[in-house]
Amino acid sequence: MAQTPYKQLEQEWKRLHAFRGAMAILRWDAAVMMPRGSADVRGEQLAALETEYHGLVTAPKITRLLDRAQANTAGLENWQIANLREMRRQRDFAIATPVALISRLAKAASKAEAKWMQARESGKFDDFAPYLEEVVHLVRDKAQLLGQSRNLSPYDALVDEFSPGLTSAEIDTIFKALARRLPGMIREVLGRQEAQPLLPIIGKFSAAKQRALSVEVMKAIGFPFDRGRLDESEHPFTEGVPGDVRVTTRFDPIEPFSGLLGALHETGHAMYDVGLPAEFADQPVGRDRGMALEESQSLLMEMIVCRSRSFVTYLKPLLEKHLGVSGPEWSEANLYAHLTRVKRGPIRVDADELTYSLHIQLRYELENQLLSGELAVRNLRDAWNSSMEQRLGVKPKSDVEGVLQDVHWAVGSFGYFPSYALGAVIAAQFHETIRNAVPDLEAQIARGEFGGLMGWLRQNVHGVGASVTVQELIKNSTGKPLSAAAALRYLEAKYLEPETVLGSAAA
Amino acid sequence: MAQTPYKQLEQEWKRLHAFRGAMAILRWDAAVMMPRGSADVRGEQLAALETEYHGLVTAPKITRLLDRAQANTAGLENWQIANLREMRRQRDFAIATPVALISRLAKAASKAEAKWMQARESGKFDDFAPYLEEVVHLVRDKAQLLGQSRNLSPYDALVDEFSPGLTSAEIDTIFKALARRLPGMIREVLGRQEAQPLLPIIGKFSAAKQRALSVEVMKAIGFPFDRGRLDESEHPFTEGVPGDVRVTTRFDPIEPFSGLLGALHETGHAMYDVGLPAEFADQPVGRDRGMALEESQSLLMEMIVCRSRSFVTYLKPLLEKHLGVSGPEWSEANLYAHLTRVKRGPIRVDADELTYSLHIQLRYELENQLLSGELAVRNLRDAWNSSMEQRLGVKPKSDVEGVLQDVHWAVGSFGYFPSYALGAVIAAQFHETIRNAVPDLEAQIARGEFGGLMGWLRQNVHGVGASVTVQELIKNSTGKPLSAAAALRYLEAKYLEPETVLGSAAA
Repeated sequence: MAQTPYKQLEQEWKRLHAFRGAMAILRWDAAVMMPRGSADVRGEQLAALETEYHGLVTAPKITRLLDRAQANTAGLENWQIANLREMRRQRDFAIATPVALISRLAKAASKAEAKWMQARESGKFDDFAPYLEEVVHLVRDKAQLLGQSRNLSPYDALVDEFSPGLTSAEIDTIFKALARRLPGMIREVLGRQEAQPLLPIIGKFSAAKQRALSVEVMKAIGFPFDRGRLDESEHPFTEGVPGDVRVTTRFDPIEPFSGLLGALHETGHAMYDVGLPAEFADQPVGRDRGMALEESQSLLMEMIVCRSRSFVTYLKPLLEKHLGVSGPEWSEANLYAHLTRVKRGPIRVDADELTYSLHIQLRYELENQLLSGELAVRNLRDAWNSSMEQRLGVKPKSDVEGVLQDVHWAVGSFGYFPSYALGAVIAAQFHETIRNAVPDLEAQIARGEFGGLMGWLRQNVHGVGASVTVQELIKNSTGKPLSAAAALRYLEAKYLEPETVLGSAAA
Repeated sequence: MAQTPYKQLEQEWKRLHAFRGAMAILRWDAAVMMPRGSADVRGEQLAALETEYHGLVTAPKITRLLDRAQANTAGLENWQIANLREMRRQRDFAIATPVALISRLAKAASKAEAKWMQARESGKFDDFAPYLEEVVHLVRDKAQLLGQSRNLSPYDALVDEFSPGLTSAEIDTIFKALARRLPGMIREVLGRQEAQPLLPIIGKFSAAKQRALSVEVMKAIGFPFDRGRLDESEHPFTEGVPGDVRVTTRFDPIEPFSGLLGALHETGHAMYDVGLPAEFADQPVGRDRGMALEESQSLLMEMIVCRSRSFVTYLKPLLEKHLGVSGPEWSEANLYAHLTRVKRGPIRVDADELTYSLHIQLRYELENQLLSGELAVRNLRDAWNSSMEQRLGVKPKSDVEGVLQDVHWAVGSFGYFPSYALGAVIAAQFHETIRNAVPDLEAQIARGEFGGLMGWLRQNVHGVGASVTVQELIKNSTGKPLSAAAALRYLEAKYLEPETVLGSAAA
């Protein structure tokens, strides 16, 4: 008996899902296991799989099946109708970006990434600039084509690829709200924290001990080590598929928090993947709802949950157990002070919750100008430095500390940066709701129990997959539209009203 | 300008090569890195890639291009003509085995492998037998189809898939020659060795130290660690592609030789891959010439080179350096006696050079009978045990020590076992030639120099790729047709005339 067009499409995407998973493991391997000299071989493998994948999604057969399935959705469940919409979306994106352009962009990006790494060693942005220029040129073409196809502005089309449905208009509104309040808040918090004592935390902590500590916390959160791994790599990341999810972190031998928090940031991503709807695990509707929501999960974990007083209560004995530490600098109060210290610095990935979004706004503005042509790549360094000084009062000591710090633009990821700041905003909005829904949330966390937290997230975020838009997901789960209000309330309470119950196990 | 059919085929196979490489890394990952619970996900990924691969090789376009290219080979080099022949061969094999059968066999094999592992725990062959029966049934179908297509007997068609051009007739001749001489030789050697003193070697040797030892020897041999890795897995194996070759071994904490020799066996395979013709790296003619030659390379390294007096001279100070050992049991004489000890045992992978081929002959006979239907799977255990007693005078204490010891049949690898014994025979034939071609071979090895050995192998074996048949390669490189004569001379000299110069640095 012939299968319905919908069922045939499910079969096609099951195969595509297997391809995606294979590519994910090959990328993970490239970053974690692959011998350095084998990059060319891996490049050929990934290019072959990507070309094949693109060919499968854009095949006339898919379009025919989609047309037939969408013409008659009687008898389909809502999930399946949403699945068709997501299939169409993937097909439209693939059709809009010819494989020749994607391949040229991949090559230019691969070269630019190598030059970026060299430039980070030589410290000279000018050596990298011509290669970035080529990438910008090709991304501009891609954005144009995507924009035409999606009926969006070129920049919004790029944003839409990473976070379906989000637009510059919403990003602008949120950034404006943050920019109104944050600079004053930062000044105030810095003033207060200067007056607070802070005992330095230094020592020597082996990777093995830090790993054991990270593993224990990850297990408590629910990371499935029978279907996942924790490894070390130059930059923390999460790869793989639900059912085989792989996170990495990087342990600093003299500082025990960056490795742990890196692992927990990635665990936030991983738990999203793990909690996606199992029934649609190999279908588009069963995927995560884009990068802003992904970052909301990692930042909720790393910044909100794991830098709370309750978490410190849970963490302190674990630090003693795994690192064998003791003394006044390991008191809960001092640990918490370390984890919430605010500092104006030049580096995004080292930034605290208060200054972080200013780093993002700088990039958002500059990448818009680069794509529109308003800013030339050769002037990017100066634009960066003056914007940094104006926003954060910080002057990068070198290009490495400045315009060369992130890899995103080199690899063609324009429109990605806003996801980080939006993720932080969404995380706070979720957190506010979870605190109401789970009254003993903080007491649970202080005992190392994450069931209340993860239960809510699984039901309201992870398990929803890609069945609704980002905005719908937020509205459905928090009862309110996406806005910066909860984030500002959260930051205010945490950094300016430390006597409130926020993040206190005494609640 | 349109490309010639030949050039188009090269492009197609470049893509197929990338697919193969991707699958190799995914299989390596499954055995070395993958979380245990992710096997189902990986199964889907490999099945999707294999189906796609099969579809690409069997596409009508390939047949059309092959017909056109082979109809007019004017202007093509010999290598390119051989490449066309190998492409045709791959296409014929794929066409002869419909993807539905391959997929059923893969599923049956995957289930049988799991049941085999369970049976090894329960110790009961009968629990595994029904699953093996299903595999035998499907392999019989496959052999039939392949045989018809290749104009070979069903069993020979399976052998041909692993070692192109080799037939049962040749295998029989070689096995007969070995069977005539070996049993008597084994009796004689056992008698002599009993009279020889052997100091026991035991201790505790960390995996890290054993690894450092293995790495130093592998580097001396020429293993490219910038384009390869050494890891640990349950059974040693080699995977990957030239340019990213990955070997594994397994370190025994109380015995330092099995881990090292496992790594060196695999290094033999790896060096074959590394030495394949670079110009045709992504083409069929640039691949190895099948499993008998593969095993010749691993056994030449593990059994002949690394169990020689010269190698022991090189190894002794490395054992002292890496394992910190000393004492009379670590003398060259005692080490050599350990590495060449002969013993009638039930386990193939623990067998020495003299008894090894008897283990293979047993399997060769039984798998022939299983496929022809002469032997029923339910009677396999009894047939195994009585053959073992008759050939080796050994009675397996359990099924695990007997019929359950190898995974090959469970996963459908019938026709593979002869490769091991043929590999040993071919290795000895190469070795005899190399000793003539490189007069100071033993002195080189005693100094830890492998240039003479690898230089000859690269020129006469590795660099030849799949441009000629196995038999041609042997004839061209040794001047003689494939036969057991050199193997018997080698074993005789090593085990019965220890005073000859064979394997002695004093030569």
